[in-house]
Amino acid sequence: MRLLEEQIRKYGVIHEGNILKVDSFLNHQMDIGLFTELGQEFLRLFDGCGVNKILTIEASGIGIACITAQQFGCPVVFAKKSKTKNIAGPVWTSKVMSYTHGVEYDIIVSRDFLTPADHVLIIDDFLANGAALTGLIKLVRDSGATLVGAGIVIEKAFQHGGDNIRARGIRVESLAKIKSMSLSHGIEFC
Amino acid sequence: MRLLEEQIRKYGVIHEGNILKVDSFLNHQMDIGLFTELGQEFLRLFDGCGVNKILTIEASGIGIACITAQQFGCPVVFAKKSKTKNIAGPVWTSKVMSYTHGVEYDIIVSRDFLTPADHVLIIDDFLANGAALTGLIKLVRDSGATLVGAGIVIEKAFQHGGDNIRARGIRVESLAKIKSMSLSHGIEFC
Repeated sequence: MRLLEEQIRKYGVIHEGNILKVDSFLNHQMDIGLFTELGQEFLRLFDGCGVNKILTIEASGIGIACITAQQFGCPVVFAKKSKTKNIAGPVWTSKVMSYTHGVEYDIIVSRDFLTPADHVLIIDDFLANGAALTGLIKLVRDSGATLVGAGIVIEKAFQHGGDNIRARGIRVESLAKIKSMSLSHGIEFC
Repeated sequence: MRLLEEQIRKYGVIHEGNILKVDSFLNHQMDIGLFTELGQEFLRLFDGCGVNKILTIEASGIGIACITAQQFGCPVVFAKKSKTKNIAGPVWTSKVMSYTHGVEYDIIVSRDFLTPADHVLIIDDFLANGAALTGLIKLVRDSGATLVGAGIVIEKAFQHGGDNIRARGIRVESLAKIKSMSLSHGIEFC
């Protein structure tokens, strides 16, 4: 998606360790006008697929998921990263390794909000090694819901998480796919 | 706001320890149609106040903040609860006591995204003792930005956090104010 690639080129900052900072418009400060255009693009890609629920993971996926859900006219459920006092009752759960933070954590969704009646589109801001997305897919599978696919804002294609998930027959659509990035040569898109 | 009060009466579940679970529509599963109406109400309340940025805190404030920001045509910044590798550079910071989780944590916002040019509306899902809101107000004050006020979805008025903050001359607008709640008598609104 050209508009998004332009934003990334203009405002993205590359740090060592394959870190791309896009926190001026995507995951700390959030450009809601841009999000609306991203949501329209996700609708174009997944229109007619029967999506009746969007699933994401806290925290930085929530904004783009909510704006996208407006396009689909459906609710959002976000997976939480640890069990709090405020979730009582049975949950779907999965383990996710965070390479950014160097820890493994549990993600949970109440069983009330993911059921066999749901046709789920997963939305997230980033896809790199695929750990978070793999965890979310497991929650959907365990619940008996139908997985329509995943819509990702930025995929670091050179880390191959997306290709591994596509190889399992799951539809993954990324609005910007980064082929390579480096401090010296900048960003190249697929 | 009558529509919101009806949702709370219909779908809210009271647990011991003054916990009100509204996770079927507000802070785990999110009813985006309802959020749009809440955002319109926040615009009605704060229209003409020059709001050019909405500040919230991860995770459950982000959805309502983003949908509200659509109404105002401005970006959202969300405060993060711990320092991650992905925030480099100087930050505004404040300490917040979480009574739900029984821990104190730091909240941070990059100094790039909260500046004296900003007229900030704080948006959050809940206001009880006021700990999170007090922390967010400190970030705004430290940054030199103008604080327009705070828009809250549900205020537990019997815990007096809101009154303490209003007593400091800060405008706090809550769309539903709970006067009392108990397992035996249900919910009474102000």
